Amino acid sequence: MNPNYPSYAASIHHDGSRRYVQRPRPHGYEIGDVVTLRLRAAPQAPIERVLVRTAPDGEQQFTGMEREEGQPEKGGCVWWRAALRLDMPYTTYRFLIFTPDGAWWYNAAGLHEHLPTDGADFRLVAGYQGPAWVRSSVFYQIFPDRFADGDPRNNVREGENGYGSLAVTCQRRWGEKPAAHGLEAMLEFFGGDLTGVEQRLDYLQELDINAIYLNPIFTAYSNHRYDVIDYENVDPHLGGNEALVSLREEMTRRGMHLILDIVPNHCGVFHPWFQAAAADPNAPTAEFFTFYEHPKEYACWLGVRGLPIFNYNSGALRHAMYQAPDAVFRRWLKPPYSIDGWRVDVANMLARQGEYQLGFEVGAGIRQAVKEENPQAYLLGENFFDASQQLQGDLWDGVMNYSGFAKPLWFWLSRFHVRQHGNPDPITAQQPWPTRALVRSWQEFRAAIPWEIALQQYNLLGSHDTPRILSLVAGDQALNRLAVGLMFTYVGVPSVYYGDETGMGGEADASLVRACMNWNRDEWDQELFQFYRTLIGLRRSSPALIEGGFQVLLVEADTLAFLRDTEDEQIIVIGHRGPAARPAEPLYVGHSGLADGTAVQEVFSGRQAVVMDGWLPLAQMAAGIEIWRTQPQKYSYSRIGGRTGMKAGSGS
Amino acid sequence: MNPNYPSYAASIHHDGSRRYVQRPRPHGYEIGDVVTLRLRAAPQAPIERVLVRTAPDGEQQFTGMEREEGQPEKGGCVWWRAALRLDMPYTTYRFLIFTPDGAWWYNAAGLHEHLPTDGADFRLVAGYQGPAWVRSSVFYQIFPDRFADGDPRNNVREGENGYGSLAVTCQRRWGEKPAAHGLEAMLEFFGGDLTGVEQRLDYLQELDINAIYLNPIFTAYSNHRYDVIDYENVDPHLGGNEALVSLREEMTRRGMHLILDIVPNHCGVFHPWFQAAAADPNAPTAEFFTFYEHPKEYACWLGVRGLPIFNYNSGALRHAMYQAPDAVFRRWLKPPYSIDGWRVDVANMLARQGEYQLGFEVGAGIRQAVKEENPQAYLLGENFFDASQQLQGDLWDGVMNYSGFAKPLWFWLSRFHVRQHGNPDPITAQQPWPTRALVRSWQEFRAAIPWEIALQQYNLLGSHDTPRILSLVAGDQALNRLAVGLMFTYVGVPSVYYGDETGMGGEADASLVRACMNWNRDEWDQELFQFYRTLIGLRRSSPALIEGGFQVLLVEADTLAFLRDTEDEQIIVIGHRGPAARPAEPLYVGHSGLADGTAVQEVFSGRQAVVMDGWLPLAQMAAGIEIWRTQPQKYSYSRIGGRTGMKAGSGS
Repeated sequence: MNPNYPSYAASIHHDGSRRYVQRPRPHGYEIGDVVTLRLRAAPQAPIERVLVRTAPDGEQQFTGMEREEGQPEKGGCVWWRAALRLDMPYTTYRFLIFTPDGAWWYNAAGLHEHLPTDGADFRLVAGYQGPAWVRSSVFYQIFPDRFADGDPRNNVREGENGYGSLAVTCQRRWGEKPAAHGLEAMLEFFGGDLTGVEQRLDYLQELDINAIYLNPIFTAYSNHRYDVIDYENVDPHLGGNEALVSLREEMTRRGMHLILDIVPNHCGVFHPWFQAAAADPNAPTAEFFTFYEHPKEYACWLGVRGLPIFNYNSGALRHAMYQAPDAVFRRWLKPPYSIDGWRVDVANMLARQGEYQLGFEVGAGIRQAVKEENPQAYLLGENFFDASQQLQGDLWDGVMNYSGFAKPLWFWLSRFHVRQHGNPDPITAQQPWPTRALVRSWQEFRAAIPWEIALQQYNLLGSHDTPRILSLVAGDQALNRLAVGLMFTYVGVPSVYYGDETGMGGEADASLVRACMNWNRDEWDQELFQFYRTLIGLRRSSPALIEGGFQVLLVEADTLAFLRDTEDEQIIVIGHRGPAARPAEPLYVGHSGLADGTAVQEVFSGRQAVVMDGWLPLAQMAAGIEIWRTQPQKYSYSRIGGRTGMKAGSGS
Repeated sequence: MNPNYPSYAASIHHDGSRRYVQRPRPHGYEIGDVVTLRLRAAPQAPIERVLVRTAPDGEQQFTGMEREEGQPEKGGCVWWRAALRLDMPYTTYRFLIFTPDGAWWYNAAGLHEHLPTDGADFRLVAGYQGPAWVRSSVFYQIFPDRFADGDPRNNVREGENGYGSLAVTCQRRWGEKPAAHGLEAMLEFFGGDLTGVEQRLDYLQELDINAIYLNPIFTAYSNHRYDVIDYENVDPHLGGNEALVSLREEMTRRGMHLILDIVPNHCGVFHPWFQAAAADPNAPTAEFFTFYEHPKEYACWLGVRGLPIFNYNSGALRHAMYQAPDAVFRRWLKPPYSIDGWRVDVANMLARQGEYQLGFEVGAGIRQAVKEENPQAYLLGENFFDASQQLQGDLWDGVMNYSGFAKPLWFWLSRFHVRQHGNPDPITAQQPWPTRALVRSWQEFRAAIPWEIALQQYNLLGSHDTPRILSLVAGDQALNRLAVGLMFTYVGVPSVYYGDETGMGGEADASLVRACMNWNRDEWDQELFQFYRTLIGLRRSSPALIEGGFQVLLVEADTLAFLRDTEDEQIIVIGHRGPAARPAEPLYVGHSGLADGTAVQEVFSGRQAVVMDGWLPLAQMAAGIEIWRTQPQKYSYSRIGGRTGMKAGSGS
């Protein structure tokens, strides 16, 4: 909080969640809907007047808010409300709050004493329908070659497929250390396959996982398979199309969702489209690519000659990729594969080549095709950077939330650093980030997109492209748990990168990122595994974590605390990075709307506490995370998703 | 400056001006251009490394900056540089600066210890060509009925044209007090005309004005003429088309530019298009409008039934307004009228009607049409709010800069307030704005648009739609001069609302906004008039004010100071609002790159001073403005514009 504001200013809160935006339908908005906006503040805040500022057809308009009837409970908050009719496809709003201390604007980036641009206004998108199942899911990411070898008969053999003249494949034994860099790291195979995934669904359900994101499975020469040579067939070494059908059917039986990784930006150099184009400049697929000097010089992904990029000026390419009835994007959404969505590789770069910036046009075409096949499909973009322009309801349903979630957390837990493609060594700052930078980054990225989409962001701690989180924190167990706990309680969808839950990682060894899953449970970190189970269970049963509001309650040098809240459930999360213990100082929650006398229970320890005079008593706290949940639950969600619903009164 | 930064951080500076972005061509950028980015910092800043962060095709890329050779002069600054090739139509960049105190991002919104979104990145637009004459112009806005009556024969007579059955027109004597509100205020006429404007060109040139913005002149029933009934003819009461030709020819002889006010969002209810549409739902022009219930209920501007809004779903309307060879937007750009651009009325609302948000599509069509007729035409949008989405190089060349300049200034000089259409009384805060809010607002709005467009923003202190600036400051002469001085030194194009330079306004009387120009010079505020002359002369001869950089040097409770700089000229502006005098405290300019020993002269008083040990000595300062300019000038621009150029060595 800006030191120029009086302390009560921190109690002013609104976000896009249901407690603050009451709406007429269970999912999404339509033009003509009348919503009720609500704003919360501490009773001692001397607020004289609150106006909602909208801009129908671009012209500023103010609507007065009414204070809701009734005295707040002691320690509770005062609410203001106003009705807002959605007349446009895209409605933005912010608040103007008059107090004796100043007139302040309040938008999704916070309070402002200056006149802000509209860039951080709250936003409601009419006509946007996100996939309803996503927000209540917990994803598990699997790198197919390394998760489980279900059928050794289909394993790659030594020297079997040669990646042209470049090299031969290597067959590795399960559990061997993978190569860290170079061609070898690309061309060694451990035998994982889709049958292996299917065989381990019991395990994933033991973890309470209900959605899987599979790294590429279409036929390719490398083990990462981003060098696709056939978009129409699952790699035989993974079990082929039949294995996918089998996996799909079993997942459907279990109520689990499945998304695949698609590479629409480029293909492998051995894809027949490129081979034909390189052989003959008049080949029908020549226009799929950009040759600077045929056939030697062509546009490729970040200079990697094995990955020629597609040129989406070609209508025939668009046809093949997403427009035709059997286009790549469509066919796998249809039975018998019926996948639940796509993770779109390098979505940030898609259909962009200098002068030609076709990303929005092509992205919108892909969106249309995918949603025609399945309106509930999840379109998840890969984007390491600021994706907010692509997250306004007309493109992706979410992105892999590196910039809006993971990077700020990494920088807070270790140190700020940047990486550049082709250079394994990051450029690193000398200090860890201040806590306020973490909070500010999270807020700025949240503020740039509609709340409904923030709930669908794929939050992660790492992936096949980054160090594992345990490596990032140099094996520190407390910081690892802190990171995991924050991911499961932050706004958006949590995900687990295969094996992180068992304690994989921990040394600064790049090869561990894609190491084989170790199925010997005796070698797992049992405490960490139980920690994951607790968090996944909590997350899947908690409306506040699935779709509740988000309010920062505390920012200290090494500590942050925030509230997740619905009308019926409130959760307070306290994260402390140490290294010194945080003294036994209570947390002020008078700004959170939690009335005095509210009982809360800590999720891991079972400790109980009661809010008194606006304060939550806290014991001394070592590095780690505490999660305090209101008791008793009036109701809980259980395995909320496309196929299940709300369940009465079971408690947590 | 955020208190979390060490003081040297304030010396880190870059903006889009030529000193910081060295470029291969005199105006604009093209794909393939290689520019040199330069960043400036105090020598004592312990900067270890500076990277330029770009995102070619969406992927983050870092380029190291080199420190320029040579020691800085004592008190001068250190420069870093890097080459950047523009590969895309729209290139964004920011800097990453490593110091022992932290790694900071630096974008157009300032320094950040957190990870920012791309929203405030610096931006260069290839292929965008702004009108080259605009940035070096000083505009004068004329409300035609009230400026000068050059031909009494064409004056409106009492009861002459009746605005349907609503009311009759009134003829007023020059200098009578206009009505403040209601129909009378719309239908009284004082006789001003285009011949009057032509007759007063000598006067405008005495002021050194070189561009005129005329409020609407096409035939209409009201005196403001936003209720157009004929887009093809200048109102006969203003002298008709012949008077415009005559004015245009005389202005061309004098090297002056002329822009007209166009109303493409709606027309007057008596326009034949609407009359035909209301008479017959099958009329060809019925589709130009939106009838909810024919003919009684139709879409109109903010509920004003006299102004039915156009429905741009109609192709025929688009044809008539901007697509056809003789379309409205085109015809006046052609000889013999050859106007230099359009001020587009309610550009914020244009072609937007709830479900249909066609503003960008129609705006782009207008842009194409206008630039086809005259690539050097100035497309100036009216927008009271955040126009940054419309200022990215594909729509308007600038807007009337209420939000990015005037409003923050108003709120700082008087108090924060908001107005809503239809309610004459603003809602007002209890205190004036803190100076930091002024600076922050200016910065945030500047940061949201390309620098080249910021240079073309139409800065103003008031217009026909607002109180006069002297009224806003309740007649306070010092605050009035402060406001005027800031407008002439801020980034963008300054403008004078007719009569402000003579001391019009000063009481809180709405009718003074459109009062008649008083041509009796004895009744003018002579000191103010000379103050304007000095500023206009300064502004037109100063490269630093026309296109120099902008860096804030000081923010105190009631004082701000900033630098405008080119390589050869630096200007320091100090604004103080009082009421108490600012004590005789020197200004720290060590962050500005001004070396010790730099001699400067104050523009109004002629006082001279020399920078010593990084400080500029200042005497006690009453409310008002001081402008310190480096001496001697190595060269100066004189009446820079489309028709003139650079002049060597004349000094200022």
